[in-house]
Amino acid sequence: MTRAVRDPSEIARYDEEVDVLVVGLGAAGAAAALEAARAGAETLVLERASGGGGTSAMSGGVLYLGGGTALQKACGFDDSPEAMHDYLLASCGDAPDAEKIRLYCEGSVEHYDWIAAQGVPFKPVFYDGCSGEPPTDDGLVWSGSERAHPFVEVAPPAPRGHVPRMEHQTGPLLMQTLCAAVEASPARIAANHRCVALVQAPDGAVQGAVAESFGEERRIRARRGVILTTGGFINDDALIEAHQPLVRRCKIRVGAEGDDGSGIRLGMAAGAATMHMDAASISLPATQPWGLKRGLLVNAQGQRFINEDAYYGRLGEWALFHHGGRAWLVVDDAIFEKPDYPRDVSAVGETPAELERELGLPAGSLEATIALYNRHAERGEDPLFHKASHYVQPLVTPPFGAFDCTTGSSIYAAFTLGGLATDTDGRVLDVLGAPIPGLFGAGRATSGLSVGGYSSGLSLGDGTFFGRRAGRCAAGS
Amino acid sequence: MTRAVRDPSEIARYDEEVDVLVVGLGAAGAAAALEAARAGAETLVLERASGGGGTSAMSGGVLYLGGGTALQKACGFDDSPEAMHDYLLASCGDAPDAEKIRLYCEGSVEHYDWIAAQGVPFKPVFYDGCSGEPPTDDGLVWSGSERAHPFVEVAPPAPRGHVPRMEHQTGPLLMQTLCAAVEASPARIAANHRCVALVQAPDGAVQGAVAESFGEERRIRARRGVILTTGGFINDDALIEAHQPLVRRCKIRVGAEGDDGSGIRLGMAAGAATMHMDAASISLPATQPWGLKRGLLVNAQGQRFINEDAYYGRLGEWALFHHGGRAWLVVDDAIFEKPDYPRDVSAVGETPAELERELGLPAGSLEATIALYNRHAERGEDPLFHKASHYVQPLVTPPFGAFDCTTGSSIYAAFTLGGLATDTDGRVLDVLGAPIPGLFGAGRATSGLSVGGYSSGLSLGDGTFFGRRAGRCAAGS
Repeated sequence: MTRAVRDPSEIARYDEEVDVLVVGLGAAGAAAALEAARAGAETLVLERASGGGGTSAMSGGVLYLGGGTALQKACGFDDSPEAMHDYLLASCGDAPDAEKIRLYCEGSVEHYDWIAAQGVPFKPVFYDGCSGEPPTDDGLVWSGSERAHPFVEVAPPAPRGHVPRMEHQTGPLLMQTLCAAVEASPARIAANHRCVALVQAPDGAVQGAVAESFGEERRIRARRGVILTTGGFINDDALIEAHQPLVRRCKIRVGAEGDDGSGIRLGMAAGAATMHMDAASISLPATQPWGLKRGLLVNAQGQRFINEDAYYGRLGEWALFHHGGRAWLVVDDAIFEKPDYPRDVSAVGETPAELERELGLPAGSLEATIALYNRHAERGEDPLFHKASHYVQPLVTPPFGAFDCTTGSSIYAAFTLGGLATDTDGRVLDVLGAPIPGLFGAGRATSGLSVGGYSSGLSLGDGTFFGRRAGRCAAGS
Repeated sequence: MTRAVRDPSEIARYDEEVDVLVVGLGAAGAAAALEAARAGAETLVLERASGGGGTSAMSGGVLYLGGGTALQKACGFDDSPEAMHDYLLASCGDAPDAEKIRLYCEGSVEHYDWIAAQGVPFKPVFYDGCSGEPPTDDGLVWSGSERAHPFVEVAPPAPRGHVPRMEHQTGPLLMQTLCAAVEASPARIAANHRCVALVQAPDGAVQGAVAESFGEERRIRARRGVILTTGGFINDDALIEAHQPLVRRCKIRVGAEGDDGSGIRLGMAAGAATMHMDAASISLPATQPWGLKRGLLVNAQGQRFINEDAYYGRLGEWALFHHGGRAWLVVDDAIFEKPDYPRDVSAVGETPAELERELGLPAGSLEATIALYNRHAERGEDPLFHKASHYVQPLVTPPFGAFDCTTGSSIYAAFTLGGLATDTDGRVLDVLGAPIPGLFGAGRATSGLSVGGYSSGLSLGDGTFFGRRAGRCAAGS
């Protein structure tokens, strides 16, 4: 019988012995390894792929940081840890980890400096007009719903998307740099090593791990701790079905092959608790360029359901989880422009009624929605969803059109947010809330800052931040 | 360090040795114990309370059964396993366990006979006009959304709520009878015994359990298996926060004190997987008497969001999970009648516009909703949500009123549906999908038939049905 946990009695001898064993070389693993090694721990990183990077290297490379970072200041923005804290606490889902948020906001300025000190370049220029990673090599962007209702009333907004200096998808640059830093550190990297089991003593302490490499088992003793930084589970159908089956409808799964929940399973096999396994980031980039935020996002009943100026991560979550992924962005000719992410026009009509017919919506439904919206929009108001007034204008100029935002044909980009329960030092917690001795975790193998209503950069952000803390804590234990 | 799992080496000697140890004496535990004992296994049931019953004894006592049971036939209803299967597969959430549903429907007629054979009385009279348990001692009721869209188009509807013969809350009668059957069987019951740990060998096999009784630890060896039937976790704030924080808003938590997830934790400590921990049954009994289904359930934007003739379990789930528990049932004077479950009238108005103002809804929102509804209702149609035509009538007779269906003041009755992953014989599965030797589970400690869109009686139904299977499987192992 194969099990994901082994008793020390099953290990005749260890092939290798280190202080700290990091499992997975994405952003969280790199941060953990760097800090563990710098704290003097003999550190080994296992990576199942042939090289480091993981999902972090496939990402947009945005890090959600703030509170007054050097980059924010260089770009002329005021921010405070308090404002960042209040935004994250309000926006990160129904029950985010308040203590993690507090620490993250207090430490964010220092964490930016640390990231930069690893050699990650940031151009001190703010790019306005896009959500998430910019089409340029500029360094600072808006990457959340800070200026949208209800958050704009909760905290002073500031752009907090910190983007490494490279055009488009900067994840590869971020990870090349962090992996190079690990290579240059005393930590060693063993690629093509897949961790298949933890070694756990009868008293519950994790003492090491078993890895497979080219068909051979290697048993590695970890004197001070094992740190699981293996990513989420977007590519594991069984876990998705068990925890958030609606995600199956998304066309794009944002995850390297290794995002199959392997580390979450390793932790659970050792008795770990999990949290928010149903939470996922769902990006629906329908309102880019931003002028399209003046459109109306409607569901299969022709009803609006969110302020369209909310961040695309929030739009996607609402459209998928609350409206089954059946949505259309309705515009008139005055609002119409070519979307950045090409998408089908589902229907066009000379009147709202004609558009509604073409879309197959119930008679009068979209017509009533537009009429009600226009009534208030004439005064720049949106009392239903409180979209910012500069995006509020009546839809009156024919023809009217609808962009397809259904899961069947539109981009819905998904990754999971839930995972192992950890404390703020990355200690993995058991089902009674006690740390499992010798077991740590960070990144999307764990439940981090956001458990809903995603802002871009929070996963690279909390993965590196709490990865560092896990590395230090493991090294010191 | 206290842990929820112990190594056999920590057990100096066992205080007792049995074949099958059942943990928790609710409906699932009683069923498991009865079948294990009848299969010849020496069986002991631990119950942490001073007597058996658990949440089952607090429930309405409805069992969801069908496929042509003797009771259905006596009441003159046709039903088939196929119709029941198609309804459950369509209504039980986004990814229910198809194999459990299939077995349950195929075995439902026999299972009814078995329940009746334990001495549970059912009066062969159908009670029409209520959802869930009737105010009489009649035996058969509607307890789901079988006649509502979209299910009425999926499968021929039949009433499947089987209710023991007693007026009101029949859970106590059900459990008195089942507990008496256990007492009369060779199985023994140890009350005031709280299971605090499983004993698990290094190879993963569960060999027994440790219980506490009046401060003393008792170690019990289970030669063939431990069956966890400890209930859900509606009364555990930490688990609710970690998995479904919106449930915190519900005024009523349907669960005995023991529904604190203890058995789920025991299983997880032994390496078990969980499923659908975010799923919950949320009852919002707002449309009783049924004439109130002619009203309009609207959200904070004055929009309808569901066909109001759906079962109250479905109404509650939609109102809470998709609309934050902010909802009102809008009626006119022609529809108004005294609700069975008293609830506040939030506002009254001579016109929809006045009602809307009184409710603090955006100007024109409710007015537009009612106008659109009335337009189609004049032809008996509801193209937005497909409410059955006999509940569709225009709201035109002043005054208009709104019943408060917000979480702040209305009944939202919640219990959890997610739990340990089990196969169809009740074997608890580990994170790799393999059975944990010697560990079984049933009832709301496990993920059962419904993972959403609840129909009443499914928990007593699957708890007893799969409890029996777990009892037999453990006894034979």
